[in-house]
Amino acid sequence: MDLMHHHLQALQKLKANTYNKDFLLTWEKTAAEIEALLLVAEILSELHQQKKSLRTFDSGLAISIFRDNSTRTRFSFASAVNALGLGLSELDEVKSQIAHGETVRETANMISFLAEVIGIRDDMFLGEGNKYMREVAAAVQEGFEQGVLHQRPAVINLQCDIDHPTQTAADLLHIKNHFGSLEALRGKKIAMTWAYSPSYGKPLSVPQGIIGLLTRFGMEVDLAYPEGYELIPDVIDLARANSQASGGQFRIAASMEEAFENADIVYPKSWAPYQVMERRTELLKNNDRDGLKALEKECLVNNARFKNWECDETRMKCTRGGEALYMHCLPADISGVSCAQGEVSKGVFEKYRLQTYREAGYKPFIIAAMIVMTRIRNFQEKLAQIIA
Amino acid sequence: MDLMHHHLQALQKLKANTYNKDFLLTWEKTAAEIEALLLVAEILSELHQQKKSLRTFDSGLAISIFRDNSTRTRFSFASAVNALGLGLSELDEVKSQIAHGETVRETANMISFLAEVIGIRDDMFLGEGNKYMREVAAAVQEGFEQGVLHQRPAVINLQCDIDHPTQTAADLLHIKNHFGSLEALRGKKIAMTWAYSPSYGKPLSVPQGIIGLLTRFGMEVDLAYPEGYELIPDVIDLARANSQASGGQFRIAASMEEAFENADIVYPKSWAPYQVMERRTELLKNNDRDGLKALEKECLVNNARFKNWECDETRMKCTRGGEALYMHCLPADISGVSCAQGEVSKGVFEKYRLQTYREAGYKPFIIAAMIVMTRIRNFQEKLAQIIA
Amino acid sequence: MDLMHHHLQALQKLKANTYNKDFLLTWEKTAAEIEALLLVAEILSELHQQKKSLRTFDSGLAISIFRDNSTRTRFSFASAVNALGLGLSELDEVKSQIAHGETVRETANMISFLAEVIGIRDDMFLGEGNKYMREVAAAVQEGFEQGVLHQRPAVINLQCDIDHPTQTAADLLHIKNHFGSLEALRGKKIAMTWAYSPSYGKPLSVPQGIIGLLTRFGMEVDLAYPEGYELIPDVIDLARANSQASGGQFRIAASMEEAFENADIVYPKSWAPYQVMERRTELLKNNDRDGLKALEKECLVNNARFKNWECDETRMKCTRGGEALYMHCLPADISGVSCAQGEVSKGVFEKYRLQTYREAGYKPFIIAAMIVMTRIRNFQEKLAQIIA
Repeated sequence: MDLMHHHLQALQKLKANTYNKDFLLTWEKTAAEIEALLLVAEILSELHQQKKSLRTFDSGLAISIFRDNSTRTRFSFASAVNALGLGLSELDEVKSQIAHGETVRETANMISFLAEVIGIRDDMFLGEGNKYMREVAAAVQEGFEQGVLHQRPAVINLQCDIDHPTQTAADLLHIKNHFGSLEALRGKKIAMTWAYSPSYGKPLSVPQGIIGLLTRFGMEVDLAYPEGYELIPDVIDLARANSQASGGQFRIAASMEEAFENADIVYPKSWAPYQVMERRTELLKNNDRDGLKALEKECLVNNARFKNWECDETRMKCTRGGEALYMHCLPADISGVSCAQGEVSKGVFEKYRLQTYREAGYKPFIIAAMIVMTRIRNFQEKLAQIIA
Repeated sequence: MDLMHHHLQALQKLKANTYNKDFLLTWEKTAAEIEALLLVAEILSELHQQKKSLRTFDSGLAISIFRDNSTRTRFSFASAVNALGLGLSELDEVKSQIAHGETVRETANMISFLAEVIGIRDDMFLGEGNKYMREVAAAVQEGFEQGVLHQRPAVINLQCDIDHPTQTAADLLHIKNHFGSLEALRGKKIAMTWAYSPSYGKPLSVPQGIIGLLTRFGMEVDLAYPEGYELIPDVIDLARANSQASGGQFRIAASMEEAFENADIVYPKSWAPYQVMERRTELLKNNDRDGLKALEKECLVNNARFKNWECDETRMKCTRGGEALYMHCLPADISGVSCAQGEVSKGVFEKYRLQTYREAGYKPFIIAAMIVMTRIRNFQEKLAQIIA
Repeated sequence: MDLMHHHLQALQKLKANTYNKDFLLTWEKTAAEIEALLLVAEILSELHQQKKSLRTFDSGLAISIFRDNSTRTRFSFASAVNALGLGLSELDEVKSQIAHGETVRETANMISFLAEVIGIRDDMFLGEGNKYMREVAAAVQEGFEQGVLHQRPAVINLQCDIDHPTQTAADLLHIKNHFGSLEALRGKKIAMTWAYSPSYGKPLSVPQGIIGLLTRFGMEVDLAYPEGYELIPDVIDLARANSQASGGQFRIAASMEEAFENADIVYPKSWAPYQVMERRTELLKNNDRDGLKALEKECLVNNARFKNWECDETRMKCTRGGEALYMHCLPADISGVSCAQGEVSKGVFEKYRLQTYREAGYKPFIIAAMIVMTRIRNFQEKLAQIIA
């Protein structure tokens, strides 16, 4: 049996029922649904590799709302919806009248008359991004129930203040393939660590998403950061509970070294402390430009105390056999390349550069899989038809 | 016989011949063509509801030119062209070289080599928007006749200084369905009234389009506005002539109350006096920023004299049975929601909110119907094939 | 045999092997490949004229990167990829994170996971544009070889600092059709001359591309410009070598009159001296705004010395029979129309206006032909199937 049929058989056994459900946080999904997501993504990727069509829609719109900059997620979303046969329309909140006092509820319906999916990136404001996605979802749900919309578009989180499910699911698929299976991840150690960056205000969604997801697979997850660079407490609690339930471990380490010790995977990446993100959200809401400048200055000064949090060759030597898999959501701040001093040394990055590209390469298929699973009632059967 | 076949039969009887004709003003269309437009839109909407494909093109471009902001018309156009199988390309006049002295004639041809339709919004300048659309139409007509273009793209008015046909046709379809048929509209009273808004300079296209279209169906059309808020005189004359020809009535009422009295439908909406729009057009042409600021100030002060022109519960009580259908093209200025004091009270809007969403929901199908009717020679037969 | 089958037969005889090769400079292509390009474009244009589908892809992305303004190339590219069945995604370097220090190598891969073609305009910096295209090409080549990308997208030059192949190939197809065949061009004289424009800094790509391409077909190519308005010396050398190899002639004439004398074709068009472009590139790199302003002023003053370099009725009388074919890539600076004094008189332009539109009309089909030839392994067979 070839790989695709093998995946399909595994998928059918999982009996995942994801029709008409949004994808907003990985921890709202069952383990079977996450497993199914990876399998669907793998099937779609394999179809693409074999130059077979992924088309599952004849027409229909996919709408994206980017409230923050994006290159790779933007193109991953564009790629995914194109491959499935949808047309892309971006809601540009500058061009549109949304800035003129329209309610989210109304706009969500106005853009959705022929929409199958709405992808949203909203990661700037702590406490706001995921909430906004739920408001959009509630609005189209009401519209569908009340006969305004012929269909209920799915809402997909393309990065919020809490989680970044398209990224972390791609990351999970990457390590599934690297180590051979999800089962093989059991007992593997991952170091999700803060790293120095000359910028400030980077979202928390990746480290939070990683510890929220990977603790479900029996892994040893070590989170490390300098004093004061805490993540949202709720997500820490979630990671702890996940690891207990899955038979793994979750630890907060005090240093990069401690986390790297015998790690099978390292994920060194900068982020801003959640307390800073809370202050920043307040300042942004009040449009306090002086306050924002002062905060940025304060944070950069504080960041600079931790310039030694860099993933370099010496630290990599402490990982299992000196050969841990280096991961990054890209773009990385590479010392001597994209900045004077950053998250990772030039040598380490270059060694794993193509691996990080492959890691990113799963994202379009993860997004396509999310769309297929939420918009096609019996997606297992649909995939069986496409493969046959 | 099901609804679609019923509509199709009615459509075939009308023998509408709209191939290769632009859609620039509703009053350039015969009553049979307007009726046919609604029927085609209903068939397309029904197909979509039944998850059947509306695809009528294998490929081809739809081009949009938005010379003013838009969310819902932009997405309605995007939805319509996608459903029909066309690709959307927006002509962004900032990005493009059109600002560098290119003539309309040349640009119209340059963007049209593989274009099936050009949708244009140009509502800022009185005397300019509809004229511009005709220049584009003349240019592609010449290009087609002279062998520059293989096909003649249709020009569709997505709102101009005079009319807003995609909106008013959607409005007409909304009330056709609300009252059961076009015949049922005969004798029904609609109050198209000015309403207060804290902004200024809103286009005249909706009130003008409404009185220009609904006077053709034997309705009693009452137009009401404060002294000085006149519409373009030509359109008033047209509405008067229409109502005489159709056996309806057209009146200019002195107050919102008078217009609302026993009305079956109310359409309270702000607009700027056409004299103000003329002055504004001159100032914009001369790039007279101080003049524009002074005019805005003058108008807002004048507007504020009419803050009591609000559609509230008390005024709604005077309508037929207290239950007139409230209509709006959205977004409405809702008192206490989107502004302190606006066109409609919170309670009235909320009661009819979902109705206004459904009203807007006809627009993508109206636009798709316009494209089908102007680009497909025997569109009746084509629809029959799709339905079968 | 009809025209399409005639073209197809000629195409098959050429045995052009262009699969997976970028289109960056016309002089990197063999004469047979250029001939094949024209034939494929003609077949695609004929299919479109006959309302037959050009679709060769079921899905896939076409990516455009415009580092300079564009209307006609933008729409030509959009038209071409739509006709072939691809979806268009523009990489907007302002919106994206590319400005934040990402390397070209990484971004090129990140946008290419499902991409079939990348079209790039980068004509502002001398020594940079074509180089950038090659960097993108090298990056996706590496990505493909290393298993990052399932397919290797083709890179197509939509205008660079050196050449403008989609324009000049369209120009060549225009004159092929005007004179009846490529063979008929032998011995024909074309005057590629500088012309006055009130702007400055226009790219060199068109005159360079024209002399680099047309010297290969046995034509007499006369290049004329005022003292100091030199093109890149390498391209001059190339044109000279080409003309010797093809049995044509290449001359640098001292005046518009000399070049126009008995010309069969005239192509009067403004450009900036390459030495100015070099200075400008340095100033732009250093972000020297004062220097740029000073250079612009100096150049406009210098330009103004050559206001008499205008293609007018008198000069046209000196061409062969007074009836040379006037060509332009558009938009032209037309005296008394788009500027007070420009490249061409109103009368001459108006006489040839529709011809220049038709010239531009070849471009979408040239671009589509480039994509087909580089992305479809046996494109001759594929076209045979589509035609049949």
